[in-house]
Amino acid sequence: MIAVLKPGASPERTEHLISWLKEQGLGVHISNGEFQTVLGLIGNTEKVDMEMIQSLDIVEKVTRVSDPFKAAGRKFHPEDTVVRVGDAALGGGAFSLIAGPCSVETEAQIVDVAQRVKAAGADILRGGAFKPRTSPYDFQGLKGEGLRLLSEAKKVTGLPLISEIMSIDTLDLFEDVDIIQVGARNMQNFDLLKELGHLDRPILLKRGLASTLKELLMSAEYIMAGGNEKVILCERGIRTYETMTRNTLDLSAVPVLQEKTHLPVIVDPSHATGQSRLVPPMALAAAAAGADGIMVEVHNDPAHALCDGAQSLTPDQFADLTLRLRKLLEVMGE
Amino acid sequence: MIAVLKPGASPERTEHLISWLKEQGLGVHISNGEFQTVLGLIGNTEKVDMEMIQSLDIVEKVTRVSDPFKAAGRKFHPEDTVVRVGDAALGGGAFSLIAGPCSVETEAQIVDVAQRVKAAGADILRGGAFKPRTSPYDFQGLKGEGLRLLSEAKKVTGLPLISEIMSIDTLDLFEDVDIIQVGARNMQNFDLLKELGHLDRPILLKRGLASTLKELLMSAEYIMAGGNEKVILCERGIRTYETMTRNTLDLSAVPVLQEKTHLPVIVDPSHATGQSRLVPPMALAAAAAGADGIMVEVHNDPAHALCDGAQSLTPDQFADLTLRLRKLLEVMGE
Amino acid sequence: MIAVLKPGASPERTEHLISWLKEQGLGVHISNGEFQTVLGLIGNTEKVDMEMIQSLDIVEKVTRVSDPFKAAGRKFHPEDTVVRVGDAALGGGAFSLIAGPCSVETEAQIVDVAQRVKAAGADILRGGAFKPRTSPYDFQGLKGEGLRLLSEAKKVTGLPLISEIMSIDTLDLFEDVDIIQVGARNMQNFDLLKELGHLDRPILLKRGLASTLKELLMSAEYIMAGGNEKVILCERGIRTYETMTRNTLDLSAVPVLQEKTHLPVIVDPSHATGQSRLVPPMALAAAAAGADGIMVEVHNDPAHALCDGAQSLTPDQFADLTLRLRKLLEVMGE
Amino acid sequence: MIAVLKPGASPERTEHLISWLKEQGLGVHISNGEFQTVLGLIGNTEKVDMEMIQSLDIVEKVTRVSDPFKAAGRKFHPEDTVVRVGDAALGGGAFSLIAGPCSVETEAQIVDVAQRVKAAGADILRGGAFKPRTSPYDFQGLKGEGLRLLSEAKKVTGLPLISEIMSIDTLDLFEDVDIIQVGARNMQNFDLLKELGHLDRPILLKRGLASTLKELLMSAEYIMAGGNEKVILCERGIRTYETMTRNTLDLSAVPVLQEKTHLPVIVDPSHATGQSRLVPPMALAAAAAGADGIMVEVHNDPAHALCDGAQSLTPDQFADLTLRLRKLLEVMGE
Repeated sequence: MIAVLKPGASPERTEHLISWLKEQGLGVHISNGEFQTVLGLIGNTEKVDMEMIQSLDIVEKVTRVSDPFKAAGRKFHPEDTVVRVGDAALGGGAFSLIAGPCSVETEAQIVDVAQRVKAAGADILRGGAFKPRTSPYDFQGLKGEGLRLLSEAKKVTGLPLISEIMSIDTLDLFEDVDIIQVGARNMQNFDLLKELGHLDRPILLKRGLASTLKELLMSAEYIMAGGNEKVILCERGIRTYETMTRNTLDLSAVPVLQEKTHLPVIVDPSHATGQSRLVPPMALAAAAAGADGIMVEVHNDPAHALCDGAQSLTPDQFADLTLRLRKLLEVMGE
Repeated sequence: MIAVLKPGASPERTEHLISWLKEQGLGVHISNGEFQTVLGLIGNTEKVDMEMIQSLDIVEKVTRVSDPFKAAGRKFHPEDTVVRVGDAALGGGAFSLIAGPCSVETEAQIVDVAQRVKAAGADILRGGAFKPRTSPYDFQGLKGEGLRLLSEAKKVTGLPLISEIMSIDTLDLFEDVDIIQVGARNMQNFDLLKELGHLDRPILLKRGLASTLKELLMSAEYIMAGGNEKVILCERGIRTYETMTRNTLDLSAVPVLQEKTHLPVIVDPSHATGQSRLVPPMALAAAAAGADGIMVEVHNDPAHALCDGAQSLTPDQFADLTLRLRKLLEVMGE
Repeated sequence: MIAVLKPGASPERTEHLISWLKEQGLGVHISNGEFQTVLGLIGNTEKVDMEMIQSLDIVEKVTRVSDPFKAAGRKFHPEDTVVRVGDAALGGGAFSLIAGPCSVETEAQIVDVAQRVKAAGADILRGGAFKPRTSPYDFQGLKGEGLRLLSEAKKVTGLPLISEIMSIDTLDLFEDVDIIQVGARNMQNFDLLKELGHLDRPILLKRGLASTLKELLMSAEYIMAGGNEKVILCERGIRTYETMTRNTLDLSAVPVLQEKTHLPVIVDPSHATGQSRLVPPMALAAAAAGADGIMVEVHNDPAHALCDGAQSLTPDQFADLTLRLRKLLEVMGE
Repeated sequence: MIAVLKPGASPERTEHLISWLKEQGLGVHISNGEFQTVLGLIGNTEKVDMEMIQSLDIVEKVTRVSDPFKAAGRKFHPEDTVVRVGDAALGGGAFSLIAGPCSVETEAQIVDVAQRVKAAGADILRGGAFKPRTSPYDFQGLKGEGLRLLSEAKKVTGLPLISEIMSIDTLDLFEDVDIIQVGARNMQNFDLLKELGHLDRPILLKRGLASTLKELLMSAEYIMAGGNEKVILCERGIRTYETMTRNTLDLSAVPVLQEKTHLPVIVDPSHATGQSRLVPPMALAAAAAGADGIMVEVHNDPAHALCDGAQSLTPDQFADLTLRLRKLLEVMGE
């Protein structure tokens, strides 16, 4: 960590700061420049409150030199982490297809969708049982019953499951769920993250609606600090001023994260765009950007076919997308 | 709710949509314009998934006509809600001063700060025991012990307490806490909100880092839907691209919220700006904008006086601020 | 345009608004709902100030039904516009490669880069002569001399030229420039846009740093309203809170714009990311998302090879990227 | 400027970078830390392209130590700049009231508004003659005729004038305008700024829609670098994701700017909020935050009184606001 002092910093206050920093157990390397003094701080700077130092009168700027994510970072773990669930493997060069409906509705629905996405090449089945909704009056999911129906679909198809948890109190219901998802709104629900850190189950961590990539990595760090190193990161669009898409899919997050971390990085183009016709181009773009997989919503609605234009793809649209993805990935790998 | 169909919408698909909407129990009022058809939807439109309709091929735009916050809204509850704790009252014309340290550190610290902010005119004592920190390696607060020390300060000064909860599992420890705070990162931790909705205790709900005012009101709605109507809203700065302040304090949120809701609206200038010297001007501005109170960080650090320039005010700076606030509020009330 | 009145709107004020709207030459279709009145406005609603109506006391919400971009929109011009310069064609299914240095420095530099990007497959040479810089103390470009050097490179290679204009007063110097670029900071310099609308030369219009896609289209409309229909749109990253990349490249802009407009849409991954190692993945992603081309910075710096890691690609890196792009585009087209 | 090298930076590449920096005329102070090397750069670092160095492979982070605004900054000009026009003075402790209609419409209108805002205490008359509009089909202002009408109002009332310029080619028409305004969309129209830098007339520079405060100061620097030191800064709301207000008024910009610069800082609450009922609370908040003045829209519309609820205040509402402001400013000054 480097602290640049202001030009007029008095010797007494400077001395005062230096002794305080030493009290915190840090080594302090002083460099008196022509105009300004620069302090290089050595040691366990993770424990130092950077904002507090930044706010001191005599301090002009504080810069952290090393990344604060020890477990998630590549520095001490250069090789890609590969997370295996059933026959699927996320990370390490593979490209994973996670597909399924936003919400589990009926057994017929989830089993049918599961069979069709499997036929099209999906590796993992997604389905929401606990649904985080902005309004308390909106449908909150089938909860335990939804997870039971997912288990049925798993039995029939053999696909591993991914589903979102909203409170650790419901963990028992997730016994058959292979990857537990933390949604964007809970990305900084630190108590939940800590609890998930004690599990021996993969966690898919979605980027918060307005979270930085650094914060995403620090939230992964919360899980990993507890011992659970099977974390999958998911870019799902961030909040900006643009309104023609629901969120702004930040695809540059893919190469940036892959440089910083050894964890698998996947992309959810369905939630990011909110419109099914934008899902295929963004899914292809995610693959071209080097993502380790995508998670897309697929829904069948034979009753009124109302979802044609919705955020979800139909099973046929998904099958078509997987064909195009496969061709693209083939030439990408050459 | 109004759905505007695209110019070329086929009669069959239009008919299909209309019957589906009626199946959902809605009345549909059809208005065939020169170029486009407009559907006016009447009934319990809260239950309708606006984004789903928006995403249909034949739909150009969907607009919700009425605000979705029933309990928090002014429509059915025009008078200001006043939340009383001890001798303090939030809302309804009063201006409340909530002050105290970011984190509770020692008994001597919290009691001293409590006495000094009380002497300066504070109505409520704040102090963090459970601290949400971006990094798992940062200090996470004294937890139960911190709440115990807050109780001591309450005994000595008689000031009501406010402190942040991060998980409902720790609720027992909050017995002596008069107002339970939900932090920005948990504003959409819906399971936590639901649990707090069953309490008979005031909840201070902070706006999320990148939450809209509508989302803030919907999160209040989660608490109120459970029966707990004592919700206090808190603007604490939103995330923007500007980096000279930690967050961007959105003071126009104050009159906008007060128009939409009957709940008290307070402002936290300390977290928003992150720099103590910006706290007094922003606190005065919040009062001038009509806020029902402010919550500011006050810290005493006799040992090394390191916090002079930090985010926290010293007790003396706080006393000076309260004098200026009082004069301002006096002329504002005339 | 649709105006939804507030529940309690008085009949007099409603009548007043209706007659005023009719005075503006609009047809008004009144629909009295159970709770609220909805006005459907027909006619030349482009001329009506939506924000003004929105701000009336009795109005709850105003929604524009039709897109305000007449010339740029697909509604009256469904086929793709193809912009031809020299042997290159932008739009209509082709994929164009625009490459060259950020700034023109010397004749040797620009000619060498031009020859090497041409050899690698570039269709158009870019090079900055007038440079918009945040600081008045930064290098502002070689100006007229830079354009003269670009002409030399064009003579040698035959590549058409693209270069940025900052003021219409310098137009004479652009005689040999095939595509005139309007930079992000001038996207809403409406006087400049109007002047460019009178030219018979293609204009590349970059999206403003924090402009919506609608604003980008309206700025294209300014140029087209003057008679110049050869406008090329360029996504180059938008400003968000994320700091690990210089801007956030909004690739979903590509399919969204292509749906709304018939104009070619290209992507500039160099300025968006600010880091050369992010350029190839984002260029590939842009192609996969369906962009009509990319514009990338390529620089040769044999003297000290300092730019290895900079925002610019080396000619070799660019050649490598074009090979990968070609393979990707081949399978995309199948 | 400080450059922190990556842990693994090879000695050859490090040496290479250091000699290149020295070639640029910089002094380089090398500090070999336990893990990393830190370079302190001394001299005219303004001329060094920070982003270029940042993007080098061996560089981890670059930090600019000193503010790049020399003329606008307080460092070499600690006292407040006071800009005088007619009887009005902006900056240096005074509080200025700038008022008038968004657009000049007729002589009767502008003279009437001018008389009424003067009676209420306004110091300067504002009125738009050249209007920057998102759409080319919207009303673009009365242009020269509008400026002529403003002159009439000035003759009648003696109020100094402020009006927006969009192109330097129209400068002749501004002869009678006392303060020339640069709008948000032209804040980085550097060619316009340079031209205005050669005038001996005050310039009101509005913050761009998504500009940082640093960029605002750098744009002021463009004007001042040309010799014109009479620059007034204006906060007018920034673009965020929030939609309940047109923009988000960033009032913390006031104390932050006043700390960084000696130039006057005023606030425009009308454009920021877009709703007249939010103007008084935000105007009062601006005064409480320490602004050097406000600029508000005032309109009279006796014909149909349609503007009651619009962004503009009526003259009566403005008179009421000035009374409240005066009381507030009185106690603030004590």
